[in-house]
Amino acid sequence: MTTKTDVMNALKKVMDPEIHRNLVELNMVRDLVVGEDGNVSFTLALTIPACPLRDQIAADARRAVGELPGAKSVQVTLGAMTDEERNAVLGITAPPQIASHEIGRVIAVMSGKGGVGKSLVTGLLATALKRAGYSVGILDADITGPSIPKLFGVHGPLKGNKTGIEPAQSRTGIKLMSINLLLPDEKQAVIWRGPMISGAIQQFWGEVQWGVLDYLLVDLPPGTSDAALTVMQNLPINGIVLVTTPQALATMIVKKALDMAQKMNTPILGVIENMAGFVAPDTGKHYDIFGPSHADEVAEQSSAPILAHLTLDPQVAQSCDTGEIETLPTEALNAFVKALAQKQPALAEA
Amino acid sequence: MTTKTDVMNALKKVMDPEIHRNLVELNMVRDLVVGEDGNVSFTLALTIPACPLRDQIAADARRAVGELPGAKSVQVTLGAMTDEERNAVLGITAPPQIASHEIGRVIAVMSGKGGVGKSLVTGLLATALKRAGYSVGILDADITGPSIPKLFGVHGPLKGNKTGIEPAQSRTGIKLMSINLLLPDEKQAVIWRGPMISGAIQQFWGEVQWGVLDYLLVDLPPGTSDAALTVMQNLPINGIVLVTTPQALATMIVKKALDMAQKMNTPILGVIENMAGFVAPDTGKHYDIFGPSHADEVAEQSSAPILAHLTLDPQVAQSCDTGEIETLPTEALNAFVKALAQKQPALAEA
Repeated sequence: MTTKTDVMNALKKVMDPEIHRNLVELNMVRDLVVGEDGNVSFTLALTIPACPLRDQIAADARRAVGELPGAKSVQVTLGAMTDEERNAVLGITAPPQIASHEIGRVIAVMSGKGGVGKSLVTGLLATALKRAGYSVGILDADITGPSIPKLFGVHGPLKGNKTGIEPAQSRTGIKLMSINLLLPDEKQAVIWRGPMISGAIQQFWGEVQWGVLDYLLVDLPPGTSDAALTVMQNLPINGIVLVTTPQALATMIVKKALDMAQKMNTPILGVIENMAGFVAPDTGKHYDIFGPSHADEVAEQSSAPILAHLTLDPQVAQSCDTGEIETLPTEALNAFVKALAQKQPALAEA
Repeated sequence: MTTKTDVMNALKKVMDPEIHRNLVELNMVRDLVVGEDGNVSFTLALTIPACPLRDQIAADARRAVGELPGAKSVQVTLGAMTDEERNAVLGITAPPQIASHEIGRVIAVMSGKGGVGKSLVTGLLATALKRAGYSVGILDADITGPSIPKLFGVHGPLKGNKTGIEPAQSRTGIKLMSINLLLPDEKQAVIWRGPMISGAIQQFWGEVQWGVLDYLLVDLPPGTSDAALTVMQNLPINGIVLVTTPQALATMIVKKALDMAQKMNTPILGVIENMAGFVAPDTGKHYDIFGPSHADEVAEQSSAPILAHLTLDPQVAQSCDTGEIETLPTEALNAFVKALAQKQPALAEA
């Protein structure tokens, strides 16, 4: 016959796939009943009730117990830990308490395509907003390819405390959160499947002490998978700035991002074309390295204005590489900054 | 009391998340027993036993039946359909049978960073190998940002038959498989979370009739998440070609890809630096648009040679946009093509 000890031993072999510790050690097993007829039932108290892996955890637990020779049937109920229990467990693995913040407007910078300058545009837009007197934060939602800290010359690792993680601050006072600020070595790969990516982004939103901000910019990674889905589904995004380049190939993929935004009912605020040719610094001659512009197409299809055309500029690349994006000119974005304020007054003006 | 009809009606509300049809319609419910004591048990015959979403399907089914007033406990066993049953169901949604193929060498093209020219390098390397007399295929593992079909001017949609999907063929006979060859509209977003991305890549490997190939090149998306994990864990990769650009920012992220490859014990075959400056076509003057090269660093850290430096060239961008990548020069890659053949004779020479 199966005993409670047998069941607990079986559950010790089941790992929480996110926290990487076993269910017994995490104090997740509750209300264990082993009937004389071999019917086993218990509740698994989840650390996060909305944990995307909850069904997997339950299935793993059911399988492990079901393999016991004396177990005739296994009933698993999913429950949730109390805040205190959760704190005790998550104190070791994640910041324990939800930070409170008040954010006026949340804008995602997206492209679908990689390497078109999403992070550059995010950094320049943050700088332009800051120069216009607003309080600004950047949530770097690119978990496997985070660029924001390097652009601003900011390094981690940040430390969490009991009320969440305090974001880093750039030289001009822009608040920054990025996975690279939490890694011991910024060249370290973050080899995570989707649910972990989504969890990190949700933590960056809910457990970072953003405080009071006029604008939070969200720098999205390429693609239309977990990160973009989580940002559009779980964050209160007011709108998207689409970044494109002249290449027709890039345009096709940017249109996929646009398709996603439209399907998710997230408004497009405008289109920024980056790498719009190269002006030779010595001769002033313009070269269409990536071909003629297709920004009009993207703008038309998204019923949104073109906000700016940014050319390839070695000075920009250099300032980005040395962490001095805040020294670059941002006049090209001033009209957009004004238009944003007219659409919705910033907190300071409300 | 709960009846079999009640249970079947409850299961009609449960959708297979991949096939988007309900479990009853898909003929997945077997061996349904409803005991007088209210204990319900049944088997779900999966179309793909290794379906990454199987636990979710089981949990959804259990929940739906568990909500019936008379159901005291619910036992779900997971099983698999016979090939015939599977064919009947998947005939409508996916190729029903595993294709057989014999592939000499599988090479992944990776960067970690987006927009550095992974697809360009993949296409040029395929062209160089083809020109050297080898049979070549490209598996486009970038599911949310697929570029390969556009580079080769190839369009879908491809159709599956009873023995798998026949890949597309480029003008020079390179076999191609990409999600964009399966979409009705290439601008349509593929809004999938990680498990679906992984499933698609595994299908592109296992259910595409690659036939006999000397080389299969795998074009990876940016990042070190699901796609890269699936390719390194589930495909027999012989080695990786790392693509980088001169920007220090890109170099940092490429080093993350390198870190992942090393952690997964996948050898690096060499490093290709793309966007290595711009040569003005009129004056012949070289401009370091993205700054000085960091390829040496990447090569040294990966203990692999630099295979080529490719400059920014408007002609290359144009040929890519018009689907004529196969007309571009590939001399820069000939030494690597020779070195590859020496490392492991191609099938034709074995």
